[in-house]
Amino acid sequence: MYEGALQELIDEFGRLPGIGPKSAQRIAFHIMEADADEMTRLADAIRAVKDKVHLCSQCFNVSEQELCGICRDDRRDGSVLCVVEESQDVLAIERTRAFTGKYHVLGGSINPIAGIGPEQLHIRELLTRLQDETIQEVILATDPNLEGEATATYLGRMLGATGIRVTRLASGLPVGGDLEYADEVTLGRAFEGRRLLSGT
Amino acid sequence: MYEGALQELIDEFGRLPGIGPKSAQRIAFHIMEADADEMTRLADAIRAVKDKVHLCSQCFNVSEQELCGICRDDRRDGSVLCVVEESQDVLAIERTRAFTGKYHVLGGSINPIAGIGPEQLHIRELLTRLQDETIQEVILATDPNLEGEATATYLGRMLGATGIRVTRLASGLPVGGDLEYADEVTLGRAFEGRRLLSGT
Repeated sequence: MYEGALQELIDEFGRLPGIGPKSAQRIAFHIMEADADEMTRLADAIRAVKDKVHLCSQCFNVSEQELCGICRDDRRDGSVLCVVEESQDVLAIERTRAFTGKYHVLGGSINPIAGIGPEQLHIRELLTRLQDETIQEVILATDPNLEGEATATYLGRMLGATGIRVTRLASGLPVGGDLEYADEVTLGRAFEGRRLLSGT
Repeated sequence: MYEGALQELIDEFGRLPGIGPKSAQRIAFHIMEADADEMTRLADAIRAVKDKVHLCSQCFNVSEQELCGICRDDRRDGSVLCVVEESQDVLAIERTRAFTGKYHVLGGSINPIAGIGPEQLHIRELLTRLQDETIQEVILATDPNLEGEATATYLGRMLGATGIRVTRLASGLPVGGDLEYADEVTLGRAFEGRRLLSGT
């Protein structure tokens, strides 16, 4: 244990996700030795995020304004809505440049063990948005894991009644991957979802 | 890229040692979602370290006062001085409870490639301390790597003239380790430093 302020900083860093005791110590020493300006910037950045960044009132993506940049962008296709679990997923999809519609961030996935049911997610707000007649397709882009699949199944059933086209992202072999090393569930999905290349 | 404050926080965390872009993003989202009190504590702890923690004026260990807790402690044996590279080494040695003397923190090791020579380390201050006649032994506890060995060799030669007893920590097989997996240099050192158990 170090004295006072240094140990407190080590403890605070140790509470952040993915930082173990050794990393926390190394970071704290780095901060102690770094120039004051750099560390004032870090402390200010922490405060600024708490003060400035909120969730978009329409899609629940992170935003510094009432509406996020994507919701504000008139060039985006308002007829397709991509439903994701987290804001990080929006960024991942944006990087692909494969999607030009808008998003809806659920804020997680259905996970009974963690006590997260449909009421804890932004599903009610999704239904409200779907009353807008311009939306013609909802793409369910929740994670391809147990919770994400459960959430997609739940939403798929619920939205079936609306008559809106509902789709789910394809599962299959990752591009650049090696068939030999694919897990059996992924490989099974790749068979189920196989595309016709020629013939009928 | 996220908008404004969130991306700035990701960038600031990404500059800390051992935090990659993915970790930085996860931490920034954690901070955004954590309660404000917790994050004020983190920001305050960063400032507090820069304001309060300095180096002990005698041994250059980290300290919030002019002299560190070990230098202030009269029960410590002032006749033995353990020379280490960093404050973190002091803590590691303290954990063993095998040493009851005092320390001298060099602030690094001789590393010509990184431009660190003897003048950049607290060696001059070490010589000044050794003029105090109570010091009877200097234990060189620099790291058992290239730079640490070079530093120990340099100090050993320099202190040879003083007539003070100079020792170096033993190198050998780590306790609980497996001989089969020891690297050859360590195994070689273990042979060189073998202890007599019986006979002459």
